Amino acid sequence: MRRSAAYRICIRETDILVAKGEAFRTIWQNGDDPSVVQIIDQRLLPHEVVVRDLRTWGDAAHAIREMLVRGAPLIGATAAWGLYLAALESRGSNEPERFLKRAAAELGQTRPTAVNLRWAIDRVMNCVRRNTGDLVARLRDEAQAICDEDIEISRGIGRHGLRLIEDIAKRKNGGVVNVLTHCNAGSLATINWGTATAPIYLAHQNGIDVHVWVDETRPRNQGSQLTAWELAQNGVPHTLIVDNAGGHLMQRGQVDICITGTDRTTRRGDVANKIGTYLKALAAADNGIPFYVALPSTTIDWTLEDGAAIPIEERDTSEVSLVRGRSGDRCLDVQTVADGTAISNFAFDVTPARLITGLITECGICDASEEGLSGLFPELAKRAS
Amino acid sequence: MRRSAAYRICIRETDILVAKGEAFRTIWQNGDDPSVVQIIDQRLLPHEVVVRDLRTWGDAAHAIREMLVRGAPLIGATAAWGLYLAALESRGSNEPERFLKRAAAELGQTRPTAVNLRWAIDRVMNCVRRNTGDLVARLRDEAQAICDEDIEISRGIGRHGLRLIEDIAKRKNGGVVNVLTHCNAGSLATINWGTATAPIYLAHQNGIDVHVWVDETRPRNQGSQLTAWELAQNGVPHTLIVDNAGGHLMQRGQVDICITGTDRTTRRGDVANKIGTYLKALAAADNGIPFYVALPSTTIDWTLEDGAAIPIEERDTSEVSLVRGRSGDRCLDVQTVADGTAISNFAFDVTPARLITGLITECGICDASEEGLSGLFPELAKRAS
Repeated sequence: MRRSAAYRICIRETDILVAKGEAFRTIWQNGDDPSVVQIIDQRLLPHEVVVRDLRTWGDAAHAIREMLVRGAPLIGATAAWGLYLAALESRGSNEPERFLKRAAAELGQTRPTAVNLRWAIDRVMNCVRRNTGDLVARLRDEAQAICDEDIEISRGIGRHGLRLIEDIAKRKNGGVVNVLTHCNAGSLATINWGTATAPIYLAHQNGIDVHVWVDETRPRNQGSQLTAWELAQNGVPHTLIVDNAGGHLMQRGQVDICITGTDRTTRRGDVANKIGTYLKALAAADNGIPFYVALPSTTIDWTLEDGAAIPIEERDTSEVSLVRGRSGDRCLDVQTVADGTAISNFAFDVTPARLITGLITECGICDASEEGLSGLFPELAKRAS
Repeated sequence: MRRSAAYRICIRETDILVAKGEAFRTIWQNGDDPSVVQIIDQRLLPHEVVVRDLRTWGDAAHAIREMLVRGAPLIGATAAWGLYLAALESRGSNEPERFLKRAAAELGQTRPTAVNLRWAIDRVMNCVRRNTGDLVARLRDEAQAICDEDIEISRGIGRHGLRLIEDIAKRKNGGVVNVLTHCNAGSLATINWGTATAPIYLAHQNGIDVHVWVDETRPRNQGSQLTAWELAQNGVPHTLIVDNAGGHLMQRGQVDICITGTDRTTRRGDVANKIGTYLKALAAADNGIPFYVALPSTTIDWTLEDGAAIPIEERDTSEVSLVRGRSGDRCLDVQTVADGTAISNFAFDVTPARLITGLITECGICDASEEGLSGLFPELAKRAS
């Protein structure tokens, strides 16, 4: 696969305030050259902010598979832009639809767990079949619409989740509200604002004294390298902890609420999210701490009832054995284990609905149950049944 | 503090078979120079096997504090040998007992959570007060006795724990027995054989098809760097996983039994062990998987009832931000987080007795309860009450 050109961007202050309005997005069409889509290479954060060009649908597939972009909403958006790039590439072809179908099929295989990858691809492919007007323009508009709508969805999640944080702040008479989050369900996982972080950013902007416990999130360290970075950019107080520490903090009364994201939610409210989420949900339940999952309705898989049926992606073992970091002024991988160590690397686990206090969606908060979800999304539930 | 000289040892095959008999110990008196005590610098494993000399009690304190040695039994033994070195240093002094008391007080402060650090120091100081025969010889014999007895204790734990693994093997008709362990409660944490690993080594030697899931154990990676290493040296099949993954494996039926160590056990059976142990115990309970804690009776703190009262050590944040590993042929630390990231680093958490199926001790297996422990150790319980 051809590698996209990489270059360092000059960081303007507004650029890195990733959660504040539209000043910065995680994926965008290059203003000077509309045949190029751009992303931040999230593998290099927090040490370097590098923008990569996507020029082909293969570049987009590579970016998803190799996790230059990650997070369910951003994966979906990247696939949508990938199909726009495929439309551009298909211009010389006799059978553009066949070309697009092949791209859609391969993009759909890049990450098996994220359900809204499938959702975004289906939405764009429906647009292909509509067959009115210029194909490239239609697909660009659709990818752009997916991104614009995603920001509105994040804002909606933020508004509903904010009430939970406000209630805790009131109960604590304005004392600090300690939120624990796992992985990165932040601006960097979406187009902006994030899912789990949207209520946190809104609370912070509204003057609530909010503090975030950031799980490191082994093996890829999305917590220490992405969540801590974007919270710092936005001035939100936070403390990094290892994944092992959350239970201890909950036992000692130092966590008021847990909020995580999800990659796939079943119709009964089970959620597949970053490996380790289940352990934190167990600790929250054991200590009577509310455990919420923030999600756009696009991550609901209405065809699945039981979380145990969700396919769990196993990723390369080098994600565990190699750790990326900075030594002096260069970034490099170090191998933490002896050569030849056998490793298993499951990317997600399933948190059963019984451990989840509620689901925070763009349309409101509901119980993690079939009744809760279909009450909030009656049309989607009906269409799926 | 003066640093001990470091040199690479020539590894003979018997040396690294740390669990097989007395061929290799984690701490020993130099055969050629009895004024020198030697240890393996465990911070450098698995990349380098480096032996360090301890020539003063200050060297021993340094080795404990900086975790050249770790694991409750080995910490106790190192403090005992430290007092032997103090006795050597006090030879020219007018008040050797005063010198030893100061050393004992400072050695006792090196790690706040491990209760048998206190136990070993008390035992050696009682020997100081006995005041018969040469002080140095008495303290050498006492330190040596602590080490010899520790190996017998580990063997005892192994024999009792073996029955649990044998029972599972029978139930599975000789199928593989999957054991999950956290941190390193192995040979390297003791003088030999280990606590949690002793039943595993015995099962392996007895031809049981045993396989170990090794938790990485952030932040210091004792699982990936110590447990995986010593299991590999002994040919025990094992697979490394991140700390986040154990719950998922338990949900999917891939764990038959959990066995961990403990740094301190209360009289009611709560255990303080490596941060993250509590989360695995929660997952085991949620999935009906037996969760055992292996311990020498010296880690029982008969003066404490409730685990919530155990002081939890907070260690330097660099343990989280810096990760040691190999790049090419050199070892170095890389910084995984952005400069200035706030970090909390709790070293232990408390697993309440209600989540523990049983305690495996050198004298047998008992319930994690006051009745269970005092039934097995009536004299110790009586003396403490």
